[in-house]
Amino acid sequence: MTADQTAAWAEQAIAEAAHEPGSAHPSREEQVLLRIERARRRRPKVREERITLAHGAGGKATRTLIDAVFVDAFRNPALEPLGDGAVLDVNGGRLVFTTDSYVVSPLFFPGGDIGDLAVNGTVNDLAVCGARPLYLSAGFILEEGFPVADLRRITASMAAAAAHAGVTIVTGDTKVVQRGRGDGCYVTTSGVGVLEREITLGEPMVRPGDAVIVSGPIGEHGITIMIARGELDIEADLASDTAALHDIVATLLDAVPVRMLRDATRGGVATVLNEVAQAAQVSVVIEEPAIPVRPVVTGACELLGLDPLYVACEGRFVAVVDGDHADAAVAALRGHPLGEGAAVVGVVEADPAGLVLLKTAFGGTRIVDVLVGDPLPRIC
Amino acid sequence: MTADQTAAWAEQAIAEAAHEPGSAHPSREEQVLLRIERARRRRPKVREERITLAHGAGGKATRTLIDAVFVDAFRNPALEPLGDGAVLDVNGGRLVFTTDSYVVSPLFFPGGDIGDLAVNGTVNDLAVCGARPLYLSAGFILEEGFPVADLRRITASMAAAAAHAGVTIVTGDTKVVQRGRGDGCYVTTSGVGVLEREITLGEPMVRPGDAVIVSGPIGEHGITIMIARGELDIEADLASDTAALHDIVATLLDAVPVRMLRDATRGGVATVLNEVAQAAQVSVVIEEPAIPVRPVVTGACELLGLDPLYVACEGRFVAVVDGDHADAAVAALRGHPLGEGAAVVGVVEADPAGLVLLKTAFGGTRIVDVLVGDPLPRIC
Repeated sequence: MTADQTAAWAEQAIAEAAHEPGSAHPSREEQVLLRIERARRRRPKVREERITLAHGAGGKATRTLIDAVFVDAFRNPALEPLGDGAVLDVNGGRLVFTTDSYVVSPLFFPGGDIGDLAVNGTVNDLAVCGARPLYLSAGFILEEGFPVADLRRITASMAAAAAHAGVTIVTGDTKVVQRGRGDGCYVTTSGVGVLEREITLGEPMVRPGDAVIVSGPIGEHGITIMIARGELDIEADLASDTAALHDIVATLLDAVPVRMLRDATRGGVATVLNEVAQAAQVSVVIEEPAIPVRPVVTGACELLGLDPLYVACEGRFVAVVDGDHADAAVAALRGHPLGEGAAVVGVVEADPAGLVLLKTAFGGTRIVDVLVGDPLPRIC
Repeated sequence: MTADQTAAWAEQAIAEAAHEPGSAHPSREEQVLLRIERARRRRPKVREERITLAHGAGGKATRTLIDAVFVDAFRNPALEPLGDGAVLDVNGGRLVFTTDSYVVSPLFFPGGDIGDLAVNGTVNDLAVCGARPLYLSAGFILEEGFPVADLRRITASMAAAAAHAGVTIVTGDTKVVQRGRGDGCYVTTSGVGVLEREITLGEPMVRPGDAVIVSGPIGEHGITIMIARGELDIEADLASDTAALHDIVATLLDAVPVRMLRDATRGGVATVLNEVAQAAQVSVVIEEPAIPVRPVVTGACELLGLDPLYVACEGRFVAVVDGDHADAAVAALRGHPLGEGAAVVGVVEADPAGLVLLKTAFGGTRIVDVLVGDPLPRIC
């Protein structure tokens, strides 16, 4: 197809996707073309001349940076769906490949450390793509003066997390930078998994009538990190939710037809839902009282002026499933130790396309917009 | 096998490998067991309590850190050969998976920048494992305040390098750290390739009688970086040798039986040869006059008190080939634009096992030891 033909085709496909909820699913290739066309139309621009913390927060600025700089430079069909991992055809099978850098501060926190966070995070990126996680790599950027004992603690934690998730750390690299050019230890994990299921997951698969599910209470990782920094005069009995989600994801995929999965890390559940609304050109309507949040998280968020919907989780995911199977999905999740607090939090509707709406406990409705700024820097 | 049986078997295998050059090659599994056993025997210890720049230099301290901390924590057969990448069985084929973090300073230098360095480096790690490079991931750790224009320059350079090497950057991640917690931009690239050739490469395949080849003049990348830092009052007409080696490696593999390939990055050619000598328990004897070094590099090294054998290249590799095919190997390399300066620099002998010896231009012989300290920090 020429660019013009692609544009015309995509125009029609977008119109169909938006207005004909009963129409057949777009194929993987069609989805990719759709995304490419949308990216071309948006032509996003980074207005800032210099990188700000907001560019790393996972919200609007991150998305603009990714679209305007990275996607613009690297443009290709495997990258452009911008999922948690890339789905690749290798050796006659489907492989999923993903990477994440971890710069969490502090390095050690209640419930985990940068090591298990990095392993679980990469395992989760593979899992929410529907893959069985297999192999991980680990690249370390260490700051001169970093205690070797802390590095041992981090690697021990990574080894334990890898063993728990059934993955193997097969290759790695270490670099050292001078004092003041790093912050102790940064870790970049990449992962490879196999996609053995005959499924296509992704935001474009979502359609009106679907149900939106959260796998457990939200915001615990983010609030734990904020408290662990000691900048706030709060003490709370709270630990990071960091966990490997491959098993609970497999449980869900075995149980019901799933449209889309995404772990709710930087930017939290609100960011995931906005990506769904925009990519599928649907409306996501969530009910405030249905959202699982522990009182300690609600309390801390009130003190900090934060909305828990934007706070990072590292062991929770958002699932959009066929609306007829919502109860079965929640039942399957609740039967798993990591899904005890799973709940249907909302539904997908046709209009207003591209928006996330929150029905509050008091009967009002407000728009849940994409995250602007970075209230919680270096959360992962 | 029990640990004792493994030890006994490995003992015998090591003895055979050292003293029976004509014996059959060890199988891949045997090699791995050999390596595991050797690692167990060494039981290296990190003596320092804190990380130093030398731990990132690629020499003795790096190796000790890797063995004592990373291998000790992650211990598994895919990791322990400690090659440039891990060879994995996936979907019925052989996959190679590798990762490297790049912290080079300055970010832009004659002949390249951190972007093409990162892409070429990961392509090369796959290539020297005998793989056809396919897909790359890229994780960015950006410092608050980093110019967006510089990031664009880096991503453009990565895109061009990827296109040139025939690989696709399919997934990525961006994190931002506060001012003073980074140094502009760090990049971690991981790569996936397929091993389609029925070959086993690696230091343990090396045996007495083999020839040692360098693919071109050495040390240009390292010296270019030193000069680009502006700390030295030297000007030289020199550029980094950064280049993707997959094509010239394929040319060599098509031409002759190859035992081992390694790109000579941190720690330079001397470090690669020491790893060969130790892993294969052989002696590597090189001839000083045969080593290709441009006069400008020799001159700069003299001024800096450096030995070019320890200076990093980013577009050169060391190959050990069957001694009977040494001339054919060099002819094949010289027929490729990246191999014009290829030369046989030495031979493999049985004794003294574990050492690299240099025959100087004046008829003397000295030991080329492993690198201690870090004369050239953040070279890649």
